Amino acid sequence: DDQNENGVNESQLQLRDFILSKILNNNTNRKIVCALGNFKDKSGVALVILEKNAFKEEELNEKGYFSEDSELRTFFQNDIYGNYVCFPNSSINGVKTTIIYPATEKHIAKYSQQEVHIILETPQLYQKYTLSHLAKEQFNLQWVYNILEGKSEQDRVVYDNKCEKEGFVLLPDLKWDGLTKETLYLLAIVRQREIKSLRDLNEGHLPLLKRVRDEGKKAILDKYNVPGSQLRIYLHYQPSFYHLHIHFTYLKHEAPGIYAEKSHLLDAVIDNIEMMNDYYQKATLPFTIREMDTLFNVYETNGYIKRIKENIELIDK
Amino acid sequence: DDQNENGVNESQLQLRDFILSKILNNNTNRKIVCALGNFKDKSGVALVILEKNAFKEEELNEKGYFSEDSELRTFFQNDIYGNYVCFPNSSINGVKTTIIYPATEKHIAKYSQQEVHIILETPQLYQKYTLSHLAKEQFNLQWVYNILEGKSEQDRVVYDNKCEKEGFVLLPDLKWDGLTKETLYLLAIVRQREIKSLRDLNEGHLPLLKRVRDEGKKAILDKYNVPGSQLRIYLHYQPSFYHLHIHFTYLKHEAPGIYAEKSHLLDAVIDNIEMMNDYYQKATLPFTIREMDTLFNVYETNGYIKRIKENIELIDK
Repeated sequence: DDQNENGVNESQLQLRDFILSKILNNNTNRKIVCALGNFKDKSGVALVILEKNAFKEEELNEKGYFSEDSELRTFFQNDIYGNYVCFPNSSINGVKTTIIYPATEKHIAKYSQQEVHIILETPQLYQKYTLSHLAKEQFNLQWVYNILEGKSEQDRVVYDNKCEKEGFVLLPDLKWDGLTKETLYLLAIVRQREIKSLRDLNEGHLPLLKRVRDEGKKAILDKYNVPGSQLRIYLHYQPSFYHLHIHFTYLKHEAPGIYAEKSHLLDAVIDNIEMMNDYYQKATLPFTIREMDTLFNVYETNGYIKRIKENIELIDK
Repeated sequence: DDQNENGVNESQLQLRDFILSKILNNNTNRKIVCALGNFKDKSGVALVILEKNAFKEEELNEKGYFSEDSELRTFFQNDIYGNYVCFPNSSINGVKTTIIYPATEKHIAKYSQQEVHIILETPQLYQKYTLSHLAKEQFNLQWVYNILEGKSEQDRVVYDNKCEKEGFVLLPDLKWDGLTKETLYLLAIVRQREIKSLRDLNEGHLPLLKRVRDEGKKAILDKYNVPGSQLRIYLHYQPSFYHLHIHFTYLKHEAPGIYAEKSHLLDAVIDNIEMMNDYYQKATLPFTIREMDTLFNVYETNGYIKRIKENIELIDK
């Protein structure tokens, strides 16, 4: 494979060369499918994630969905209700595609459908199990450092505060196309490298957190014309990588991972620390975990959680 | 228009004749858009509802998405991650289309969405605006008292602890069919009548809250065979009615209103009060509000929030 000077892989993969081995997950609500397989004549496995795009409002006109090109096929009509399938011009009907290649076991686990549980992580459990586990299992953070050092994705950066202590880079999340207001999703990655997650935060970080909130809101208002009162600004616990980052999504957008068991609003985080400096060192933090995750095994082995039996009875039986 | 013998309107509507007047709703999670408009040369208004289809597994092969027809356009590549847009053959990329014509005012209201904002409610704002507002605007709680007094829905009760101080009634939420495990949703309504919401809770309520958690979990395990570690147990702020109630949903079920800006896990609530008796009297609690809500007017009039202007510019314009 070819690599450019930043270590970025430039060779073009083609979907026609993809050989499916297994569908890991098919979310029929969000219309996302995750496929595991390999590319012809390439070693190692690959993940292909396909996601139907949300509708863009500017395509709902006589040049887009309401044009001559939109073929309508009738399923049925009953009184004032009619059901059809429409085949629009393919240029407005793209499918968001993510390819991870080569993919590791951990990527495969991340994208597989699993039984999910909640664990209540006390500060003691964090110290004893989570912390030592994540030190061992940490994903490679090279892609984060590439962004912070200006080696990758520089054309995507929306805002950059270069202060080593309170600075951060704001850029569109991988899940966002960077254009559609309805699905607005940006990520602020802080420049400090030693903050792993929510658990590490205390009053020393308040200036940083407030800067991310206030400057992030302003940059998004300036560039995308979305006011701060319509932004959901939050941290995940557990995060998917242990370098502090803050999510910005449009409030109307039901982005993945915004549920109460996973997301902590930045304003609530700031308020908690202002009320109690060591709130995040003292609090019991719930987090969700899938049975396939290696951290699940740690908590299971120590008796904190039980795996669902394959033959569990359903309600209706 | 032609009608056949079943009263079914047979004239074929065509999307190319649809003239958009307004987008009522754009659900970017489920990829559904609702458009209001009219058809050329036809009287009355129409609703056109477009929904991207979920992926069919039989199309994930060399004749479908992984065929020569799938054109891949690169957004960017960074290390092992690549983002693309794929334009598959239009025959496998149909869009579910529903047309309601002629549509009534009620259809339009049903399919409309509102602008939503987050308000950060300090204890002072709660006292000054929210509390006095909810005293005036409170919905009638007679239906709640009917359940507690055994006058209504008694055949639906799953568990009943009759203690006036620490008791509660557990029953399926109105949104749940009471059968399908995948969408499990129950509600615990406490017997004490003076607790309006999260804001009123302190250490005096800990025995009640723990009883709801522990006895609720056990009742659900006994009846539905869902273990406590797979339940999302939470309170809403603001709640939809001001008599303390606790939601129980299946963790895998993406129920409405489970987002971080609206839901507070019961375990986190208990932990917060154990750390600080008056946590919920001191905390700044965020809540979401629609521009149509009367409480929005109160905060708007006092300068805490701004309505979105109709002519707000979109990102791309």
